[in-house]
Amino acid sequence: MTQANIPKVPESHLDIMQELHGSVSTIRAKDGLISTNPVVFDFDGSYVRFSTLKSRVKYKNLLADPRITFCVVSRQDMTKYVEIRGTAILDDDPTGSFQLMLWQRMTGLDSFDLDPEGAQRVTVTIVPEQVSTPLLYGGQLGK
Amino acid sequence: MTQANIPKVPESHLDIMQELHGSVSTIRAKDGLISTNPVVFDFDGSYVRFSTLKSRVKYKNLLADPRITFCVVSRQDMTKYVEIRGTAILDDDPTGSFQLMLWQRMTGLDSFDLDPEGAQRVTVTIVPEQVSTPLLYGGQLGK
Repeated sequence: MTQANIPKVPESHLDIMQELHGSVSTIRAKDGLISTNPVVFDFDGSYVRFSTLKSRVKYKNLLADPRITFCVVSRQDMTKYVEIRGTAILDDDPTGSFQLMLWQRMTGLDSFDLDPEGAQRVTVTIVPEQVSTPLLYGGQLGK
Repeated sequence: MTQANIPKVPESHLDIMQELHGSVSTIRAKDGLISTNPVVFDFDGSYVRFSTLKSRVKYKNLLADPRITFCVVSRQDMTKYVEIRGTAILDDDPTGSFQLMLWQRMTGLDSFDLDPEGAQRVTVTIVPEQVSTPLLYGGQLGK
C-alpha cells in the first residue's frame, strides 16, 4: 500500500492530529481482551507513529496480531475526534532517536533517560485501513 | 460475578473516573478491526456505563462479541489513566432515562432530543475483568 492510496484524515480534522496524545488499542496475545491506553504520537500527514519498548505488552500483542486502532479526541471540543483503524508496522529504533524526538517536542528537554537499562525501543507505524471522523452527539453537545 | 469480587479502580485513581468522557474499544463484527471512540460515561464505583443506540456499529459489535475495554486519561495529568478490560452487558433503555441522566449532568438541559425518530437506546455496562493504572513515562513527563 503506497502513501497515495491510504485513507486520509480530512482537512477539517487535521488540527486534532496535533494533540499531544491519543489512545491505541491492540488485542492482548495473552487472553484476547482488548488493550487501550494513551500514547504520545507523531502524525506526518499520512501515518501515526509512536514509540514503545520490546518489553511491553503492546509490542508483544502487535507481534502476535497487527490489528491496531488509534483514536484522538479534540481537547477543545470533545464532540470532534479522529479514529484510524488499521495494522501496525514495527521498526527497531536502536538509538531511540524517534522516542527522543517525541520527548523533546513534549518537554523541551535534550535527553530522555526514563528507559530501564538495556531497553529496546521500537517505532510503531499505523497503516490506516479506515479513517472515521463522526461527530459525537452530531457536534451538538451543550450548544 | 458479584460486585464484591470484581477488580476495583484504586482510590488513587477515583478522581479520573469523574472525567466527562473516556474511550471504549470493541471488535468490529464486520471486519474484525478494532473500534475505539469516545463516550460520555457514568461510574458508580464498580461499573462504567454508557449509552448507545441499537442502530450503532458499537451495539452490533457487542452483540457479536462482548469484549470491551474502557480507557480514561486525566485531563490534569496525562500520565495518569485508568484502563478497564472486560465484557459488556446490554440493557434496553426504552425510555432513554439513562441517556437523559448523562445529558442532564453534562449540559444542565432538561431534555435530550438528538436521537432520530424511532431510535432505541441501550445501556452498556462494562463488567471488569482487569483494571490497570500504570503511569505513562512513570509519571515523569516534563517533571
